[in-house]
Amino acid sequence: MKQITTIGILTSGGDAPGMNAAIRAVTRAGICNGFKIKGIYKGYDGLINDEIKDFTTENVSGIIMSGGTILKTARSLEFLTPEGRKKAYENIQKHSIGALVVIGGNGSLRGAIEFASEYDVRCIGLPGTIDNDLYGTDSTIGYDTTLNTIVECVDRIRDTAQSHERIFFVEVMGRDAGFLAQNSAIASGAEAAIIPEDSTDVDQLGHFMERGIRKSKRSCIVIVSESPKCGALYYADRVKKEFPGYDVRVSILGHLQRGGSPSAHDRILASRTGVGAVEAIMQGQRNIMIGIKNNEIDYIPLTEAIRSDKPFDKKLIKVLDELSI
Amino acid sequence: MKQITTIGILTSGGDAPGMNAAIRAVTRAGICNGFKIKGIYKGYDGLINDEIKDFTTENVSGIIMSGGTILKTARSLEFLTPEGRKKAYENIQKHSIGALVVIGGNGSLRGAIEFASEYDVRCIGLPGTIDNDLYGTDSTIGYDTTLNTIVECVDRIRDTAQSHERIFFVEVMGRDAGFLAQNSAIASGAEAAIIPEDSTDVDQLGHFMERGIRKSKRSCIVIVSESPKCGALYYADRVKKEFPGYDVRVSILGHLQRGGSPSAHDRILASRTGVGAVEAIMQGQRNIMIGIKNNEIDYIPLTEAIRSDKPFDKKLIKVLDELSI
Amino acid sequence: MKQITTIGILTSGGDAPGMNAAIRAVTRAGICNGFKIKGIYKGYDGLINDEIKDFTTENVSGIIMSGGTILKTARSLEFLTPEGRKKAYENIQKHSIGALVVIGGNGSLRGAIEFASEYDVRCIGLPGTIDNDLYGTDSTIGYDTTLNTIVECVDRIRDTAQSHERIFFVEVMGRDAGFLAQNSAIASGAEAAIIPEDSTDVDQLGHFMERGIRKSKRSCIVIVSESPKCGALYYADRVKKEFPGYDVRVSILGHLQRGGSPSAHDRILASRTGVGAVEAIMQGQRNIMIGIKNNEIDYIPLTEAIRSDKPFDKKLIKVLDELSI
Amino acid sequence: MKQITTIGILTSGGDAPGMNAAIRAVTRAGICNGFKIKGIYKGYDGLINDEIKDFTTENVSGIIMSGGTILKTARSLEFLTPEGRKKAYENIQKHSIGALVVIGGNGSLRGAIEFASEYDVRCIGLPGTIDNDLYGTDSTIGYDTTLNTIVECVDRIRDTAQSHERIFFVEVMGRDAGFLAQNSAIASGAEAAIIPEDSTDVDQLGHFMERGIRKSKRSCIVIVSESPKCGALYYADRVKKEFPGYDVRVSILGHLQRGGSPSAHDRILASRTGVGAVEAIMQGQRNIMIGIKNNEIDYIPLTEAIRSDKPFDKKLIKVLDELSI
Repeated sequence: MKQITTIGILTSGGDAPGMNAAIRAVTRAGICNGFKIKGIYKGYDGLINDEIKDFTTENVSGIIMSGGTILKTARSLEFLTPEGRKKAYENIQKHSIGALVVIGGNGSLRGAIEFASEYDVRCIGLPGTIDNDLYGTDSTIGYDTTLNTIVECVDRIRDTAQSHERIFFVEVMGRDAGFLAQNSAIASGAEAAIIPEDSTDVDQLGHFMERGIRKSKRSCIVIVSESPKCGALYYADRVKKEFPGYDVRVSILGHLQRGGSPSAHDRILASRTGVGAVEAIMQGQRNIMIGIKNNEIDYIPLTEAIRSDKPFDKKLIKVLDELSI
Repeated sequence: MKQITTIGILTSGGDAPGMNAAIRAVTRAGICNGFKIKGIYKGYDGLINDEIKDFTTENVSGIIMSGGTILKTARSLEFLTPEGRKKAYENIQKHSIGALVVIGGNGSLRGAIEFASEYDVRCIGLPGTIDNDLYGTDSTIGYDTTLNTIVECVDRIRDTAQSHERIFFVEVMGRDAGFLAQNSAIASGAEAAIIPEDSTDVDQLGHFMERGIRKSKRSCIVIVSESPKCGALYYADRVKKEFPGYDVRVSILGHLQRGGSPSAHDRILASRTGVGAVEAIMQGQRNIMIGIKNNEIDYIPLTEAIRSDKPFDKKLIKVLDELSI
Repeated sequence: MKQITTIGILTSGGDAPGMNAAIRAVTRAGICNGFKIKGIYKGYDGLINDEIKDFTTENVSGIIMSGGTILKTARSLEFLTPEGRKKAYENIQKHSIGALVVIGGNGSLRGAIEFASEYDVRCIGLPGTIDNDLYGTDSTIGYDTTLNTIVECVDRIRDTAQSHERIFFVEVMGRDAGFLAQNSAIASGAEAAIIPEDSTDVDQLGHFMERGIRKSKRSCIVIVSESPKCGALYYADRVKKEFPGYDVRVSILGHLQRGGSPSAHDRILASRTGVGAVEAIMQGQRNIMIGIKNNEIDYIPLTEAIRSDKPFDKKLIKVLDELSI
Repeated sequence: MKQITTIGILTSGGDAPGMNAAIRAVTRAGICNGFKIKGIYKGYDGLINDEIKDFTTENVSGIIMSGGTILKTARSLEFLTPEGRKKAYENIQKHSIGALVVIGGNGSLRGAIEFASEYDVRCIGLPGTIDNDLYGTDSTIGYDTTLNTIVECVDRIRDTAQSHERIFFVEVMGRDAGFLAQNSAIASGAEAAIIPEDSTDVDQLGHFMERGIRKSKRSCIVIVSESPKCGALYYADRVKKEFPGYDVRVSILGHLQRGGSPSAHDRILASRTGVGAVEAIMQGQRNIMIGIKNNEIDYIPLTEAIRSDKPFDKKLIKVLDELSI
């Protein structure tokens, strides 16, 4: 095993709050343990195009509390091609990058797997995505912050919903996973959640609202997981049509869910996994993601981490049902 | 002048943060000065349908920090009819309401004017609207909170805009007035604002972005005042078509702008004007709005308050222009 | 086993954000499953003095987002006496309370154990404390919110620390446990933490500051766990004396750490454990605390929960050390 | 009048949120109008010690939302001496600084007056202080943010106060002025405020509490303006002694009041006055402070601005009295 002297860091895919805290942690723990650090800009594109810069502790000073990523991020099309990855590897060699830390979600880690299967690159993944859809870690960097942002927004919307006695369909992010929708529904005291993991029948929904609205509740909030076909607008339209007489509104929270100062939880998760990444590199690990399970640092093979079936706790559906009576 | 013993309070039109602080202030100052207080639910509809309740200080305990309105609010169609106002007046008499405090925006105060022109009702308006479009008061209850909410959202969106080098068109509320859009643009460090008070040429906008983006700025945020025809989607589409090559996104902030715990400024404004309303009633005033001008309580005839030409300071356009270079 | 028809709920000890969400969850899940609910005011004192009220879903409406506890709380001296507990049991019988849900920390659960050892009362504990010092649950209700509040405060203090190039000793809560101090130090990017689990030598501290301050850092933040003798003032004094020349300041965060709207995490934890408490009652459980371990509901015997040796992860000390270089 | 080509900027005295927004505004408006900009570090000390740097728009990029001051700040003892000011003037000449923008409070503007009386320096002041104690401007940069921070803290403390039925004495900043204390008391729904502008008799206070506590209110919050002798601890002690039986607590908010992301209001105030400073320089103005009165930019002679008698609206005392019944 050749001695690793230099660690490269990039952020890739959708940005998530806490990515900066992770960049900071890898940089500082790396330098503390004698490594050189290279910051790679704009994800895999920057690796291909040699947008790479030496990083000292000052590059990461004062960023622990900021959202977004100072390394910028992108979804690289060129990295999907063999030619792209070849260029990327040439820059890996040029900069003597012995280990590459990739902070991102599913697609980003998939890219790392592909890259590592073709070239002699040690890839270490950090779970950076608001969607919480990576296997093997209790939560992902950004998820807790986004959950809090959604809940804060729904708290605000509820003020209007109650004052006007309206039904709001609030659409939240989450890609193909309902973690954000289901948990933000529980945390905001919403009346229902529509998630990919559980089929929703509009009749049921209507029935539910009749029950809730007719009784003591005069307003109602339904959290809807984003979906190309059946988002908040779809459900709002159907309810308006089939259960006329309600004042139905839609709010699509959109991109503001991605930003903001990271929560304490995400800063700690990013700091611990960032330090863990450097430790794993020192142990000679490769092609793993650093996660936290049961409050302990854990190494998950990258191929495991991107499994599409991260378990969704069905009991959360019961929790919301019982609390929205 | 017959002795007034009872004050009725209602909130009407769109809800605004600080309405509860205003309800609290009128109730407490009223009781402190020997009046009985009647809380009227759901705006003018509640006056028509006799949804009226005796209020003590406990009814308004702990509400100074909450958004929305505990009295609920509505836009009443029935109150636009003579029959509706007749029923409303019957309830005014039934409950011996000597003065009616109406907390709301333009339409709500217009209703009060109509009502007072037909019946012997003393109407006192409080400027409750996030739009800041009432004449004769430096700001309206809710405006400062909403401005802060927008700025917080744009701060979050900027994290993503910068990380991905995107152009965001962010649509904000304001009805026919650009106060929220222009001032939130200045406060959030946005690159431009599109407001009703100033015509915007897409060529200009494109030109502007070429300048900004081509130079050092790689991301750009444009705040767009809501508009049935030319909102954020319209401008985003035109820019995408006429200036291809940019990664353009739209975020419509929507209803979350109305809610949330009121800012210190709005709580103070609501408290001072609420106390001012009771003082005005004791002085025998009628058909005025209580505002604050130059940090002093001021009485503005209701007919003045709803003038459509609240001056928009054109110098703010220059401020934004110079700061977005 | 006699059929339980009625559940009593009380909050006890120091208040913690999320207690209201827990009260709401027990109440709603209880009613949903056919139980009657009794709200007991002011902790064990209210049980002794019969300050007990029937609760419906409306009693807990709109409280999920509020800090403090609508049931109020106290540290009861009378309940420490056999006479006090006897009176308490008489009220348990009078109100036919079959199961008593106690939301509180160490001392409160200790009281429940004593009570259950003397009388036939089913006690179910919910971990309600900002200190996170209960065994058998990954975190306690209130801990995550307080962590976020501290981090927000330190973010603010850092603005001043950096602008003036000062050293700040910030004292945080935590009773005898360093969870809040160590984790808030990591999350806020502080330079050091002084915690009960790790001895701190002032020479070390001075040495550390010489290193940090002399190098690139011109400001420094040290988080200090509260302590009767060696709090922030003590360390600030010693550093001032032994390492003169620094501009040293102290900030004791105090009671604001206890309040505020609970974080998404604490609302979910409170909701899940609250529903879990009702489930446990239906299963005939007694004298357990409901916790969440590894993202699953877990039952912990009360006697286990109050063990004083909740493991403190020493690796967190290394994390902070490496990140504060 | 010789042509001015270069503007120097410094921040001085206690830091205030919005100082960065002001630095950004002067820099950008200056550059937009053809000036060179020099950033002077650490207040007057940096002017004396030549810690001066060329500023471009990039130096002020992304700082509008951050608290503190990127130029750092200090209270300079050397500038109080003729020798210090002589050295400062030499650097003014060395860097061809034609106009000096000083962002700070009372003491800082006093320094500018002294400096301008001895040397040919055009000084333009911007009102940068959380205390709001500068004459001729409706509010100062930082005041609104600090007011919001205090109110947020008191909202949190109230959760605990109500849950435990306690009396809290909360000490806030404000130097010799009661603006922060009186207005935060109104905005937070506190029961009383103790301010320098109004004498407070402990008997009165006790009487007041008897009334409040004995009636329906079981908790009480008193905001106390900082004071060397009669701060929150002093009043708490006296109340404990003279009115035993209450559970009295003290919270001294301290330095966290100075930091944090500036409010929309402060960012706008800083932006407008910053642009106004450049405009004033172009008009040949000197030795004035830029303020906003009645929503219009205003020029106030520096000697006026530091007058110690900024009017305190006594009606605010009545507002609080009536609302705390």
